[in-house]
Parts: sequence; structure tokens; C-alpha cells
Amino acid sequence: MRLTVLIRPKTGILDPQGEAVQTSLEALGFAVAEARVGRLVELEIDTDDEVRAIAEVERMCGELLANPLIESYEIVRRPA
Amino acid sequence: MRLTVLIRPKTGILDPQGEAVQTSLEALGFAVAEARVGRLVELEIDTDDEVRAIAEVERMCGELLANPLIESYEIVRRPA
Repeated sequence: MRLTVLIRPKTGILDPQGEAVQTSLEALGFAVAEARVGRLVELEIDTDDEVRAIAEVERMCGELLANPLIESYEIVRRPA
Repeated sequence: MRLTVLIRPKTGILDPQGEAVQTSLEALGFAVAEARVGRLVELEIDTDDEVRAIAEVERMCGELLANPLIESYEIVRRPA
């Protein structure tokens, strides 16, 4: 089963990478009110049990993938 | 309007960051068949015209956000 983790800087947390992207887009002539940059981790888990896979990925987020102090995450199932 | 761009390494393209995540997850005792790491860019565009906003973000991807040689991207609309 393939699950995707979307990791974003929490609201209010400074996001220098997002600011750089916004500045660069504006320099190219695009109008952007805000840009935030996060990470995407796509995981292939050897199970068909969605509940179990999501619980496992939750634990991965807590232990390695996300920093709960400054990032929020969302686990989504994607079509293969 | 808030649009999210999901940027992933193309299939077959070496993804050292993904390999590092997989190795680290396995070292922590998790069973992961594959891990791929990409980026997520969330953009706030000052328009309510979804077709126009998506066309604009397509151009941003071509000019700055993604490297079409090694990355694929997907533009998704997210609830506010």
C-alpha cells in the first residue's frame, strides 16, 4: 500500500524557503500572496490493512519524518 | 485561492534522500518497501478563477518550482 505524508511548516512558523520561493516568483513576474514549502514522503508499506498502515506511518512521523514542534503532517492514501 | 503543488522525483530517477529515509526507518525497526522524498509548495494566489490560477501555477512549475528532467508535479486544490 502506498501512502503519502504531506509535511508543512505550521502556521506562524517562519519559513525562509517559502519566502525565497515567493521572492523568486515575484521576480519572474508572478503575483503570489503567499508561498510555503514543505516535504512530501511517499511510502510503500507491505500490507493491505489501511488502518494498520496509517498507524505505522503515524509512528514513523513521530519518530523520524516530521518535527512536531514546527511541522504538521497529513497522511493521505493515493491511487497506485 | 490556495493551490498545492506536489513535486516528486520521476520513477527511475535516483532519490538519495528517499534512500536515506528508508534506511533510517529500517534502522528504527519499520518495514518499508520503498520511500521517495519530494517537495510540497503551497501557494496563495489572488484570484477566484480556478482555471486561470492552475494555468498560472503550471507556468510557475515550468519556470521555477520543478525540474522537468527529473521531477514530475501535480497541482491540487485544497480546502482552505
